[in-house]
Amino acid sequence: MNISLDQARVIIAAALAAARAQEMRPLSVVVLDAGGHVIAFEREDGAPPGRFAVAQGKAHGAVMMGMGGRKQMARAEAQPYFMLALNGAYGGKLVPVPGGILVRDTDGQVVGAVGVSGETSDNDASIGLIGVAAAGLLGED
Amino acid sequence: MNISLDQARVIIAAALAAARAQEMRPLSVVVLDAGGHVIAFEREDGAPPGRFAVAQGKAHGAVMMGMGGRKQMARAEAQPYFMLALNGAYGGKLVPVPGGILVRDTDGQVVGAVGVSGETSDNDASIGLIGVAAAGLLGED
Amino acid sequence: MNISLDQARVIIAAALAAARAQEMRPLSVVVLDAGGHVIAFEREDGAPPGRFAVAQGKAHGAVMMGMGGRKQMARAEAQPYFMLALNGAYGGKLVPVPGGILVRDTDGQVVGAVGVSGETSDNDASIGLIGVAAAGLLGED
Amino acid sequence: MNISLDQARVIIAAALAAARAQEMRPLSVVVLDAGGHVIAFEREDGAPPGRFAVAQGKAHGAVMMGMGGRKQMARAEAQPYFMLALNGAYGGKLVPVPGGILVRDTDGQVVGAVGVSGETSDNDASIGLIGVAAAGLLGED
Repeated sequence: MNISLDQARVIIAAALAAARAQEMRPLSVVVLDAGGHVIAFEREDGAPPGRFAVAQGKAHGAVMMGMGGRKQMARAEAQPYFMLALNGAYGGKLVPVPGGILVRDTDGQVVGAVGVSGETSDNDASIGLIGVAAAGLLGED
Repeated sequence: MNISLDQARVIIAAALAAARAQEMRPLSVVVLDAGGHVIAFEREDGAPPGRFAVAQGKAHGAVMMGMGGRKQMARAEAQPYFMLALNGAYGGKLVPVPGGILVRDTDGQVVGAVGVSGETSDNDASIGLIGVAAAGLLGED
Repeated sequence: MNISLDQARVIIAAALAAARAQEMRPLSVVVLDAGGHVIAFEREDGAPPGRFAVAQGKAHGAVMMGMGGRKQMARAEAQPYFMLALNGAYGGKLVPVPGGILVRDTDGQVVGAVGVSGETSDNDASIGLIGVAAAGLLGED
Repeated sequence: MNISLDQARVIIAAALAAARAQEMRPLSVVVLDAGGHVIAFEREDGAPPGRFAVAQGKAHGAVMMGMGGRKQMARAEAQPYFMLALNGAYGGKLVPVPGGILVRDTDGQVVGAVGVSGETSDNDASIGLIGVAAAGLLGED
């Protein structure tokens, strides 16, 4: 099963609402399905143009590796060349830092991923988790 | 100047509302800025996973070439090798068929593009034009 | 839901058994999940080394476009530049000829795709359909 | 000479049987020929979708460089930029960690490579070596 478009809209709306409430910098949020394909994306005004690829890379890496961005960062800090080689193996679509959230349904099945880019990595991740929770899904950082 | 996120949301919402009213197949709609970079995207439930690349290719080609998908198709029918070489030159991000809409503001400046995929090319194009008009912008097919 | 590894093994074993019974040339068979990712692959001895990419391209295009290879070929014959542009949009992973089979479960949900390469396109397709049927799934040519 | 399909099947079956006996996480195993081209692949249920590229990268790098993943890792730790440049040179198809096994026949000729992904790198490598030995071939880690 995949995240539905309605759920993706809730994720993005809740994430951006939280970012505005916290007066964060302009953010970009992508929602992918369980195969790593884009369901929905929004980039706030004022964000630089390259944010789609960063958000996509965070979320795509989470789906492909089955782990969130924070776990990927820990692996990258231990073996940088390994995670960079994976970036190449996935055609550039893996960005191993917080802000990539693996998303499961309440049965524990992976249903997609969320990628947030534009703030500190920690803020990107916390905003992503807020969005996922708002849709009644489980996020792994 | 670029299409704003608010305008992009209007474009996508109006396009998908029209598609539902006309009982079309599940659609995907992307909005790009004047540099060809993604502002917003939505893929309806039931659409195959590969639609992002098709919608993006239609809109990206419109920005890069400064002409809509219908004009690109006419050129592709006269000189297929030329448009296919451009597909290669743009890293695959040019799909020369109707459904790619070049978007101008009321002063005639290019502010971005819209790409629609999932129906017949003619329906994709008409839906895209409806979305652009709903945001008070001018679409070139 | 995706094709399971057990189902993928049945598909490949039945396909290759049928090919041997019909004394076909050495074949290659790939099974992808509903996101277009490889579950299983076998290339028979004597097949040229490049068969993986052809089989993968047939099956990947079927998943991405939601249609089998025969339908893609019809579209390619009407608009060659369109299907070639999609080949570029999918990074080369779309080969629009028979031998790419879209696979649904008995509820009609897409659960993956099969790609066969090595014989005539018609034989590739018939072998793929035999494999899919052996696993109790529904194939669309 | 290359690994035969029958040998590849033995390698994968023995590798996955050992992984199940040791209650490892779901694994993916690829077998390549002496030119680095895929002969056979299986991904166990529950493994994330991106495992093919990782397994392929480990095995492809072993063939291309003529050395197993453990030797590549030692080189990567001494000169990360060199192995990452090779990742680029091979189009992303080099992942320099254990789990990539160079395979020789009993005469010492390279006949292909095996790539395993899904567990710790050390477990990936030990499983790959078990598979190679089961086929009566010699694996270099």
